[in-house]
Amino acid sequence: MIYDAAIIGTGPAGLSAAITLKLHNKSILWLGAKNLSTKVEKSEKIANYPGVGLVTGKELIEKFTAHAEAMELEITEQMVTAIMSGGDYYMLSAGSDVYMAKTILLTTGAAAAKGFDGEEEFLGRGLSYCATCDGFLYRGKTIAVFCGDERFEHEIDYLAELAGKVYVFAPYAGGKYGKSADKTPEVSENIELLPKPIKKVSGGMKVTSVELADGTVVEIDGLFCLRNSIAPATLLKGIELDGAHIIVNREMETSMPGVFAAGDCTGRPYQIAKAVGEGNIAAHSIVEFLAEK
Amino acid sequence: MIYDAAIIGTGPAGLSAAITLKLHNKSILWLGAKNLSTKVEKSEKIANYPGVGLVTGKELIEKFTAHAEAMELEITEQMVTAIMSGGDYYMLSAGSDVYMAKTILLTTGAAAAKGFDGEEEFLGRGLSYCATCDGFLYRGKTIAVFCGDERFEHEIDYLAELAGKVYVFAPYAGGKYGKSADKTPEVSENIELLPKPIKKVSGGMKVTSVELADGTVVEIDGLFCLRNSIAPATLLKGIELDGAHIIVNREMETSMPGVFAAGDCTGRPYQIAKAVGEGNIAAHSIVEFLAEK
Repeated sequence: MIYDAAIIGTGPAGLSAAITLKLHNKSILWLGAKNLSTKVEKSEKIANYPGVGLVTGKELIEKFTAHAEAMELEITEQMVTAIMSGGDYYMLSAGSDVYMAKTILLTTGAAAAKGFDGEEEFLGRGLSYCATCDGFLYRGKTIAVFCGDERFEHEIDYLAELAGKVYVFAPYAGGKYGKSADKTPEVSENIELLPKPIKKVSGGMKVTSVELADGTVVEIDGLFCLRNSIAPATLLKGIELDGAHIIVNREMETSMPGVFAAGDCTGRPYQIAKAVGEGNIAAHSIVEFLAEK
Repeated sequence: MIYDAAIIGTGPAGLSAAITLKLHNKSILWLGAKNLSTKVEKSEKIANYPGVGLVTGKELIEKFTAHAEAMELEITEQMVTAIMSGGDYYMLSAGSDVYMAKTILLTTGAAAAKGFDGEEEFLGRGLSYCATCDGFLYRGKTIAVFCGDERFEHEIDYLAELAGKVYVFAPYAGGKYGKSADKTPEVSENIELLPKPIKKVSGGMKVTSVELADGTVVEIDGLFCLRNSIAPATLLKGIELDGAHIIVNREMETSMPGVFAAGDCTGRPYQIAKAVGEGNIAAHSIVEFLAEK
């Protein structure tokens, strides 16, 4: 089956596009986290999304979830690791699955818009996005894990069962391994939390080290990047960026035909209303694109 | 007082901008209809404004109104008829009042984006936007009235007390004079409903006739256009348009410094989510513009 559209990301932009595409009877593959948006969910207070009044992020996510459920939208909770053009359509690699779609909508958020220095270069050469796929390669070895979301923590535990030593950096607050975790992880003695964010990955033929934000170099055999989504330039070779953001026009078209983008990944303001608006525009552009084909 | 921003229009784009500007502690003048948006209000069913589920237009307007009230936003129910640059600020003429604002946000909707053929040319020469201001000029004469919203119908009644004959075209359904009104208006015998929309206004030094969509020419001494808002090109001389739409960039900047636009007036898709998103972006651009001044 070739989907009409694959939407990468389940934040406000992805949700808005998914609803509108569904109303237009398009077949969609919607990939991302089932909790929609950790960023929205953790917002203490949202006052400027018109129509819902003053709400907490959690309350807004509940409303978003109810809307998605009422529309019978389904989320495929997989991380897309690569997108390649197949001519008239695109192929998406997610875990061990491959999907096909006529159009792509990137709603990957701001955080994912930029990878580490060297990330693209070392992908497949000691840098992996998939613990289940590549963990076995590091039996007894030393690895680092960047964990972008609490929901990937079980993958750290899995990697710690295989590897000799696991360095972890998790940029969120809370969870077992998050920033405010001043405790020693209980699960495994071979896990060590890195004191500073990972900035750069280096090596020769393969990864040999990561450099932290304070300049510290940590020697490793491999790096796992567990994120809700991958940097667009890594996902889709050749897509045009302006700094960390995907370049789009007013129709939300990117530099690649059939590829659209919406939400924080296209630039500031990083706002729910803006993301919802752009998702809506992108959905309409996709409908037009499909009609013209 | 010079306001930080004047928002023309109280639809979803205007509301979104008003909320965000208020949160940024900006002083705003918000001009338009107190019912926010007749277009939204009359929508039978809205399914793709994320977070509210499947609602009627009336229900969504209630939610929007509640949000505006919670933010203590005030609407000035006046129609702006002209905007002029005063150098560092803009002057707005509304009824017999003049306001000043450092920035202008046009959220005037799709319907208002284009006036009649000849509208700009004959403004002040037999064509008026204000029954109260200019009605007395047409005592005993023959006039036509374009009535864009039910809430202006009382102005038709006022004009009928003065004029000898009043032709009316009202594009909405319902009300006393709306399209589905197959009855003879009860208030005044000198009112006649036009069978087709007004297309063009013609004359020499002054208005002498209007042409309807079917080519019929109706001779008149004056034309009143009672609308929620005026065509942007008439409001603001020199603003760049693409057909009926105001040209904006991704920051919602128009061709004039300090003038922004959002919502249906900037083009398709004519969608609430898109309008809300653009209003949000415009508000952030206004905050930046004010900071740089």
